Amino acid sequence: MTVDRLTLLDESQPNPAADRRIGPDELGDGMADCCVLQQRLHGGLCDGVDVIRAKCGDVTLALLPTRGMGIWKVWVGDEEIGWKSPNRGPVHPKFVPLTEPGGLGWLDGFDELLVRCGLESNGAPEFDASGRLKFPLHGRIANRPAHRVELSVNRSAGEISLTGVVEETRFHFTKLRLTSTVTLRRGAPRVWIRDEVENFSGSEAEMQLLYHINFGQPLLNPGSRFVAPVRRVVPRDLRAAEGISTWNRYAPPLAGYAEEVYFLELIGDESGVTQTLLKNANDDRGVSVHLNTRQLPCYTLWKNTTAEADGYVTGLEPGTNFPNPRSFEGQRGRVVKLAPGAIAAFDVSIEFHSDSEAVRGAEEAISALRGLDKPEISERPQSDWCVIG
Amino acid sequence: MTVDRLTLLDESQPNPAADRRIGPDELGDGMADCCVLQQRLHGGLCDGVDVIRAKCGDVTLALLPTRGMGIWKVWVGDEEIGWKSPNRGPVHPKFVPLTEPGGLGWLDGFDELLVRCGLESNGAPEFDASGRLKFPLHGRIANRPAHRVELSVNRSAGEISLTGVVEETRFHFTKLRLTSTVTLRRGAPRVWIRDEVENFSGSEAEMQLLYHINFGQPLLNPGSRFVAPVRRVVPRDLRAAEGISTWNRYAPPLAGYAEEVYFLELIGDESGVTQTLLKNANDDRGVSVHLNTRQLPCYTLWKNTTAEADGYVTGLEPGTNFPNPRSFEGQRGRVVKLAPGAIAAFDVSIEFHSDSEAVRGAEEAISALRGLDKPEISERPQSDWCVIG
Amino acid sequence: MTVDRLTLLDESQPNPAADRRIGPDELGDGMADCCVLQQRLHGGLCDGVDVIRAKCGDVTLALLPTRGMGIWKVWVGDEEIGWKSPNRGPVHPKFVPLTEPGGLGWLDGFDELLVRCGLESNGAPEFDASGRLKFPLHGRIANRPAHRVELSVNRSAGEISLTGVVEETRFHFTKLRLTSTVTLRRGAPRVWIRDEVENFSGSEAEMQLLYHINFGQPLLNPGSRFVAPVRRVVPRDLRAAEGISTWNRYAPPLAGYAEEVYFLELIGDESGVTQTLLKNANDDRGVSVHLNTRQLPCYTLWKNTTAEADGYVTGLEPGTNFPNPRSFEGQRGRVVKLAPGAIAAFDVSIEFHSDSEAVRGAEEAISALRGLDKPEISERPQSDWCVIG
Repeated sequence: MTVDRLTLLDESQPNPAADRRIGPDELGDGMADCCVLQQRLHGGLCDGVDVIRAKCGDVTLALLPTRGMGIWKVWVGDEEIGWKSPNRGPVHPKFVPLTEPGGLGWLDGFDELLVRCGLESNGAPEFDASGRLKFPLHGRIANRPAHRVELSVNRSAGEISLTGVVEETRFHFTKLRLTSTVTLRRGAPRVWIRDEVENFSGSEAEMQLLYHINFGQPLLNPGSRFVAPVRRVVPRDLRAAEGISTWNRYAPPLAGYAEEVYFLELIGDESGVTQTLLKNANDDRGVSVHLNTRQLPCYTLWKNTTAEADGYVTGLEPGTNFPNPRSFEGQRGRVVKLAPGAIAAFDVSIEFHSDSEAVRGAEEAISALRGLDKPEISERPQSDWCVIG
Repeated sequence: MTVDRLTLLDESQPNPAADRRIGPDELGDGMADCCVLQQRLHGGLCDGVDVIRAKCGDVTLALLPTRGMGIWKVWVGDEEIGWKSPNRGPVHPKFVPLTEPGGLGWLDGFDELLVRCGLESNGAPEFDASGRLKFPLHGRIANRPAHRVELSVNRSAGEISLTGVVEETRFHFTKLRLTSTVTLRRGAPRVWIRDEVENFSGSEAEMQLLYHINFGQPLLNPGSRFVAPVRRVVPRDLRAAEGISTWNRYAPPLAGYAEEVYFLELIGDESGVTQTLLKNANDDRGVSVHLNTRQLPCYTLWKNTTAEADGYVTGLEPGTNFPNPRSFEGQRGRVVKLAPGAIAAFDVSIEFHSDSEAVRGAEEAISALRGLDKPEISERPQSDWCVIG
Repeated sequence: MTVDRLTLLDESQPNPAADRRIGPDELGDGMADCCVLQQRLHGGLCDGVDVIRAKCGDVTLALLPTRGMGIWKVWVGDEEIGWKSPNRGPVHPKFVPLTEPGGLGWLDGFDELLVRCGLESNGAPEFDASGRLKFPLHGRIANRPAHRVELSVNRSAGEISLTGVVEETRFHFTKLRLTSTVTLRRGAPRVWIRDEVENFSGSEAEMQLLYHINFGQPLLNPGSRFVAPVRRVVPRDLRAAEGISTWNRYAPPLAGYAEEVYFLELIGDESGVTQTLLKNANDDRGVSVHLNTRQLPCYTLWKNTTAEADGYVTGLEPGTNFPNPRSFEGQRGRVVKLAPGAIAAFDVSIEFHSDSEAVRGAEEAISALRGLDKPEISERPQSDWCVIG
């Protein structure tokens, strides 16, 4: 019997999210190369994590309802896309001391290809005058579990979608609801993400959201390049300023390498739609992150070309803001204000390029967006975007 | 086969607390309209929470062993009694950052009809001179799981009881054991709670306990009133002082409303037994909280008539103390001292009134307790009960 | 069908660590009195804890993969060895607020016979200048779960071994991997522990490890004695200095007793191998902790002869360091430095003595190690080993 919609996970149903496979028979006509596999992991730091693997043609993704609908990894054909974190994930939030006094506990759970930072805040931890933690690194949403996940099938479009709902709440404080839909389409080497964040409070709220999209080998390798229609580039700090001349090129793994972070403004088309590319040294493999600058005006490039064992990785990070402490960004207006009941939508997609032709196509699209503009490259951190001194 | 006693949950038994139903056959003669349903929830913030639903005649309650034997909701006939928290509960303690530096993590799990605050401390968070958290908001007991729950059936009385044991311990520090019994009786629209707190240390201990009993719609609505045999009323702070003239009346939902809290001393009978009432605007629906002022001498009324979406709710809160920081209450002697092995007992019951006659009955009982005394109403916070300045 | 190796727990396998028994049939020839029982606990603070019980001849142990491969209890014949903690364990890490601002959350989970303290740090909590927690009491390893546990059987030696792998990681920071093997041998009243700690980072790392091995009744009783080949004894603080004249003798349970801690340097043989003994008042029961001073040069004796209800217990604690704050020990070089990929190995065994002859044998072995040396006993804390003032 074919299904159009199917609830995979629902907190109001007494049955556990058991191991379950939805195959071509249920997905129906024309979905022969598709299937959905639902599992609960056991043992280690993964214990209790629900994973939903969806395969649609050549692309498979592993979705993490338990970690705020993050995307753990993607496989294109047989090739695994993601990165190797020294953390053995996916890590259940119960093992992540998010609010430890130093504010860095989020790092204990970090190993996904795509992890959302938000929703009340993201960025560096912030402390009050007495040194007490106010906002932990990168916020709470990635360590909040979805309470409902639904599969939907669009046979005419050859699409499978997974929609999950995650709430970030605190009585007296935050009431934000993320409804995230991830879509795969047969024949397309791409993952579409449509997120809606609703303020379901009776009072106005503010929110932040940053997509921390991370790649290691094989897309990142020595000589890999980042390509984007850039209007402005600013090094986050003096460390990043040292590397400004090679800000868009990647070095080989180097033990002890300290991360370099660049803040970017991108050029979009008339609707704000734009594209950024990470390509390997041979120009024959790459990944594009598509986004809309009206939704996500701040773009952060994170270079962490440390030893493989420590996480050789780069982050392509479109956001509503730069990942500075919450108050710094708030004072500069880099938050989204939501009236009671209002919803902000965010569209991001990740496209995989498997040969030099596809990489060239992405470069041409970016070149067309860029036009004749030269990027403004700052040699030093700038006070409108960076915490200085 | 009928049962007199049945262990529902026991950490020493290897089998999981599976879904289980104990029906009239097992409950025996005269218990035809009773049953007990045990479930473990899956998904969302509820993941791993054990819920025991007990129905006895017209009254059903949902008990939360995983949250310190709190009562999630009650149903009288088809009507749900409780409130709508913006938190999607019942929330497993693993998702409650109780000890985060700001001390307010308890709010992430707050959605029950009855939640205990204690046992080492309750009330506002307290910090040391360097700003480091000493006592988190409302203490630990509501986020400690029962290690044993037993059902007992008293057919001659038409009663079902559920007894759970929860320990609040820390090596070198606290060793307190709560044994809580909740009883339902056929034909009675009432829930009885008998709690015993034992200091099982070899040394003397202190404890605090406050019953945070919360009601929203339909018992709370615009024009609802709080009725009690009050000896003294004090506004907790300047915010509450603003509303002192309407301290016992409830406003409609108002987005952005800041909570108002009143501290009360109640008049009891010769044994200390007393009764407080919340009734709706029409005087045809209400709920009484019965307590003993010798056990619970401090009564807090919490008015939080904010927007429905943010939690339109009032708390009727008998306690051993007022919910001020632990040291403030300790210095004023509002703690219970327990010798080694000593037990303090607390009796609270919640009675539901479904028509105007029942409401009138409750008012008359309260009126009789009150006698001719006029309550002493303070216009301002008072230093014996309130943290001022 | 007999097994040589069997994976008991593996995060990459979708099936839960179900209740499972591996009996003599699978263990094979000559292992008739051996078996392995694997369970996941449910309810209370134990909820979700995996326990592996291994029996080999007269000795049974309960191993805790979920608590960093700690040893919960041992049984020799019918006698339970361990201690009675006021915490009702084994406690799942999700109920242990390890990083609460005061740094003492570790105490909430403490109830094992053997618990490892480490790996980044152990000892008293350490705070920065603003009072913010830097290192929590006794570190993280005991509250990290193993992601893989394997059983191996050596029939010719009559041995059963359990090997578990636990990682203590934080992206950008720690990358340490503990591979712990616990071995039982038929006919030997002894538990062997072989731990290897690997720095799998590309950069150098430091580590600390202390074995907190704890005994209560019946091995600890009034008049019990600690016997060891001691070169030097120093009381940790003024409290311990008060009891220096009886540092190696044990008092009856006394409510309110404050712990006394002594720091020791032991004499080993030419390879560093040495032995320490706790024996009861009658000299007819005891336990030896065997260790190597080249691996574990610092030995701490913890006396906590408080009331039974509060945990009448002593800790025999070989370590790489004394359990002072991390920086204090680091400044004095009491950490292990590990090059990238380097491994440090630690061998500890616990031998049970069931009659006066066995106790006497242990005393003779210790006496031979001691030779004619007199221990240097300090009356006061010493600044090279102790935090003074």
